[in-house]
Amino acid sequence: MFKSRWIAPVAIGVILIASQALAADKKVIAVSIPAADHGWTAGVVYHAQAAAKEVNTAFPDVEVVVKTSPSAAAQVSALEDLSAGRKLDALVILPYSSEELTTPVKAVKDAGTFITVVDRGLSDASIQDLYLAGDNIAVGRNTAKYLIEKLGGKGNLVVLRGIPTVIDDERIQGFNDAIKETELKVLDIQYANWNSDEAFKLMQDYLAKYPQIDAVWANDDDMLLGVLEAVKESGRKDIKLALGGNGMKDIVKKVMDGDAMTPVETPYPPAMIKTAIYMTIANLVGQAPVRGTVKLDAPLITQENAKEYYFPDSPF
Amino acid sequence: MFKSRWIAPVAIGVILIASQALAADKKVIAVSIPAADHGWTAGVVYHAQAAAKEVNTAFPDVEVVVKTSPSAAAQVSALEDLSAGRKLDALVILPYSSEELTTPVKAVKDAGTFITVVDRGLSDASIQDLYLAGDNIAVGRNTAKYLIEKLGGKGNLVVLRGIPTVIDDERIQGFNDAIKETELKVLDIQYANWNSDEAFKLMQDYLAKYPQIDAVWANDDDMLLGVLEAVKESGRKDIKLALGGNGMKDIVKKVMDGDAMTPVETPYPPAMIKTAIYMTIANLVGQAPVRGTVKLDAPLITQENAKEYYFPDSPF
Repeated sequence: MFKSRWIAPVAIGVILIASQALAADKKVIAVSIPAADHGWTAGVVYHAQAAAKEVNTAFPDVEVVVKTSPSAAAQVSALEDLSAGRKLDALVILPYSSEELTTPVKAVKDAGTFITVVDRGLSDASIQDLYLAGDNIAVGRNTAKYLIEKLGGKGNLVVLRGIPTVIDDERIQGFNDAIKETELKVLDIQYANWNSDEAFKLMQDYLAKYPQIDAVWANDDDMLLGVLEAVKESGRKDIKLALGGNGMKDIVKKVMDGDAMTPVETPYPPAMIKTAIYMTIANLVGQAPVRGTVKLDAPLITQENAKEYYFPDSPF
Repeated sequence: MFKSRWIAPVAIGVILIASQALAADKKVIAVSIPAADHGWTAGVVYHAQAAAKEVNTAFPDVEVVVKTSPSAAAQVSALEDLSAGRKLDALVILPYSSEELTTPVKAVKDAGTFITVVDRGLSDASIQDLYLAGDNIAVGRNTAKYLIEKLGGKGNLVVLRGIPTVIDDERIQGFNDAIKETELKVLDIQYANWNSDEAFKLMQDYLAKYPQIDAVWANDDDMLLGVLEAVKESGRKDIKLALGGNGMKDIVKKVMDGDAMTPVETPYPPAMIKTAIYMTIANLVGQAPVRGTVKLDAPLITQENAKEYYFPDSPF
């Protein structure tokens, strides 16, 4: 008994020293993201894992650890696990919800960790060192600008909205502000909750109600898929353009292939998680200044540049 | 004669094939920056070269080439040299002047090169894919906020301006907007052209004119050096704080050492060139979305975080 009692603490001590030495050798970046509960978050998981692989290969002194969580509560636990027994040099987080994650992320920051927040902000912006998100106003504005040009500044539109949120409001605001001085007329605008089936039904309603529709804007690609199906089934020839938004690979592929009805796309790319990871690395490895707010633009994806936005192996 | 004529084109052909194969193997990023004509640009050169070294080591398929130019005309020639005989995958440029570089950079872009512009913008913003700069308004605002807090919202200030430019105007605007609802009073504000000697003389004038000065703000660290010298020579004890701005290493070192008169600093970091290079790499290597505008924040450098902003080997 005496002997085994004596050995055990020594063994634990050795293990602790070994793991501390390992931690001291490598800078650890934890990436905490929602699990793949729909297409966009599946894209986030794909790009986070790709970034981890690239960065871990490129920088032997850095270890990127990706952890996905199926709920806000699970993400809170994940943060505790990730930071237990070691100091995280940086945390890149796409919070499941602002309210529940704010206090746990603050605890990680208070331990001396660099905090990068992606897409959904925390309730207290002073916690983040770097905040990176897409530009939903630009998604709407750039789509509208393209329609104005292609339709010569006049025509009948129908629009499909998503789930009532700030994201949806901003996309619609960008769109409406851009068309307000033109003769483009929005015949109808209803919610279809970013859902393909609901969008299919709503588009059938629009087709039944309006005999002349020049273009459709579904402010998200899941809805665009439903719209395209309804238009196809109707056999209607008046609809010249049907556009979406987000950068889903099926839609980017259409753009790449020169599709007549969907010749352009606007990104709100899940790959932004990758940009956030690379910027955080630039700070950790190269002391590059990155503190601040980065709003990624939503440039028009065209046949010329579509390749840059196409990830054939991504689920999204 | 026949033989040598026949050999020559073959040899040239072999060389061309070899260099094309090399170009195909590596993605080439050209970094075009002004030569080190003063402290800040010397810092840019230092950080660009450091980034090239780090990136070339980390990514064997990428070659970052840095070229410095002592004038706008030289930078125009450098662009021609850099892009002669090969397609640049990306160009990261801090233009010597907006006017003279806009057309040459457009020519590089038209050849299919990704364009990252740093600090000084081009005359046509549509040429850039990514634009990255510091935030001069935040430099002034964050300095003012610190003074308000430290002086309890009241006191006598003197301010030194730089060279009449947008940069100087923005720093002053950020500062004035922040103090306007307080009882901080600017006794005097004059130009000293971002020059240490002129700042020394101007500060001597201020000291002669005003018997009670609580704090001095020189909106750049070169001027702050002159201010500190004048205050020291005067032996005056009323001046509690003298702050600068830019992130010069001598001043960051003071902050790190807990200097009483200059306990904080605000960065407008030449290391932003490094951030731009890393972001461009993220796009080229990892297809990470980076298009848009990045305005780096100017967070207060304090004794706690000064290490992150300190580059002992940099000339700046």
